[in-house]
Amino acid sequence: MPDYSIHDLGDIKLQSGQQLQKAFLAYKTYDTLDAKKSNVIVYTTPFGAQHTDTEWMIGTDMALDPNRYFIISPNMFGNGLSISPSNAPPPHDRGRFPNVTLYDNVVQQQRLLRERFGIERVQLVTGFSMGAQQAFHWGAFFPEMVERIAPICGSAKTSRHNFVFLESVKAALMADPAFRDGWFPDKPERGLRAVARAYAAWAVSQAFYREKLYEKLGFATIEDFLVNAWEVNMLCRDANNMMAMWWSWQHADISANDHYGGDLKNALGAIHARALVMPSATDCYFTVEDNRQEVRHMPNAELRPIPSIWGHRAGNPMQSPEDLKFLNGALRELLAS
Amino acid sequence: MPDYSIHDLGDIKLQSGQQLQKAFLAYKTYDTLDAKKSNVIVYTTPFGAQHTDTEWMIGTDMALDPNRYFIISPNMFGNGLSISPSNAPPPHDRGRFPNVTLYDNVVQQQRLLRERFGIERVQLVTGFSMGAQQAFHWGAFFPEMVERIAPICGSAKTSRHNFVFLESVKAALMADPAFRDGWFPDKPERGLRAVARAYAAWAVSQAFYREKLYEKLGFATIEDFLVNAWEVNMLCRDANNMMAMWWSWQHADISANDHYGGDLKNALGAIHARALVMPSATDCYFTVEDNRQEVRHMPNAELRPIPSIWGHRAGNPMQSPEDLKFLNGALRELLAS
Repeated sequence: MPDYSIHDLGDIKLQSGQQLQKAFLAYKTYDTLDAKKSNVIVYTTPFGAQHTDTEWMIGTDMALDPNRYFIISPNMFGNGLSISPSNAPPPHDRGRFPNVTLYDNVVQQQRLLRERFGIERVQLVTGFSMGAQQAFHWGAFFPEMVERIAPICGSAKTSRHNFVFLESVKAALMADPAFRDGWFPDKPERGLRAVARAYAAWAVSQAFYREKLYEKLGFATIEDFLVNAWEVNMLCRDANNMMAMWWSWQHADISANDHYGGDLKNALGAIHARALVMPSATDCYFTVEDNRQEVRHMPNAELRPIPSIWGHRAGNPMQSPEDLKFLNGALRELLAS
Repeated sequence: MPDYSIHDLGDIKLQSGQQLQKAFLAYKTYDTLDAKKSNVIVYTTPFGAQHTDTEWMIGTDMALDPNRYFIISPNMFGNGLSISPSNAPPPHDRGRFPNVTLYDNVVQQQRLLRERFGIERVQLVTGFSMGAQQAFHWGAFFPEMVERIAPICGSAKTSRHNFVFLESVKAALMADPAFRDGWFPDKPERGLRAVARAYAAWAVSQAFYREKLYEKLGFATIEDFLVNAWEVNMLCRDANNMMAMWWSWQHADISANDHYGGDLKNALGAIHARALVMPSATDCYFTVEDNRQEVRHMPNAELRPIPSIWGHRAGNPMQSPEDLKFLNGALRELLAS
């Protein structure tokens, strides 16, 4: 029995103009929508994760308290639960999955909230990484609907450096002979292992290794960490799904649409929600500096870096209780404001 | 006509205990050794470079002034000019080239100076990146011989994070079907392009892309920069030579030998040469913090970060005249001290 629900979207027109047929959104809700439909939190998913992978932020002892809030976690397109290269019916399966933007994602997420639940107001949109990028999109496109956003370790627009980092992991996967023009008829074992090692260098900080934090996670050596934390994780993934999500990530930009016409300052200025923007102090690809420049143009935002040496992985309780405490405190404060 | 000389080393015993037969060192000298043999500078080569690639630091208007100094540039083992997988006679050719440490390199470089030139004192050892790592080794192993060292963008010991970064580029190259257990019978085109993209993300800084410095270098777009700066460069390289040099880089550690027995503090403490350690402020893999911790244990050293946003590539005059001015000023000051 799956623990999530499916919302059929029908044939949708993507931002690119292309049609995606028989689209659907997988989502999970946590506890009860109140009578006024006033207690809604949208908790978005990051790259490569499904709602179950980020559930650890939800709990009665947490800011995202299901006794108090109705929390909806919509799965990002391409993550294997919502429509993705791995589960799309032909002709959009595998190597033929169309390019989907984060704009496309949030537009359909908003449909879900309206069509399925009749929700017109959202207390908070929050998420990590690409989930944070979706939170920025919610703020920019549904300002009348969103009270607060809390993007964690993510930016309103993917920076050029971040784009190049993603070029490098894509190229590593494409170097595998199983790539076969993007169809991956076999599992790209070596490519996935190469991607694992690339993430191991990028997703945690220089200080993480300096302080040997992998030992804190129970790994005896660096190689143990690379194989048993990263390779094992990456080998479970669908290569086409990753390619689809990387495309969305590389092209994330709240201003890249007819409404804002590429004017990022204008798009940031339109985010009237109270915003608490929380990069990790040591993130190597979603940097504090990128968020600092974005917050400068947001009328109602505060930049609050997480003082963490866990790099992009700041906040995961499996690793750093201090980061989690910081995040919960900040989210509680924001929700009370 | 080659512009360099060869010093035959005969059959040498490596630090690993393994023998490397018919070894040789390629080197170039710049102008004249004085009568007292007192004007010697050793200018080491970094990863993937040959002496011609770093010659831009030598000039009559530079700190490394060939009118004043006798500058010797020994090519690192594995770089294609000194003995390397690409030019070693069987049985040590290609995929069978033995693991060579930077200790092995500097021991043979010192032989060159003594055997060929009768040199007993060196005014300065300097170099970039892995060249900087060799400078640290010179300081730690020939303290009676070396007056000064100036490691630029490199560390005495390769940090764990730096090691993982190198794991990721190795894995990208090994994902190419041409890898064939390390023999690369064909050119690993895709792997080399993946390595190129990985370096493009690591070797310059986040700020480099934020400020669009690739435009300053004459590239119109990021893709133009990736293809015409990085891929073109990486496609010229020999995959086995890169693998050999990465091994040396990953295992660089002035204390990893019988003499210091893994005690890095002790090895750093033995560097009595005046040392000016110059990391780039924005280097993503040879970080300022790593050098800071090293300098703390060196009796006669100063840490002086290069205030650059060019990342690991700080100092290259093709790109940043300010960095070059900084380095020349610092080296002049050190040589005058």
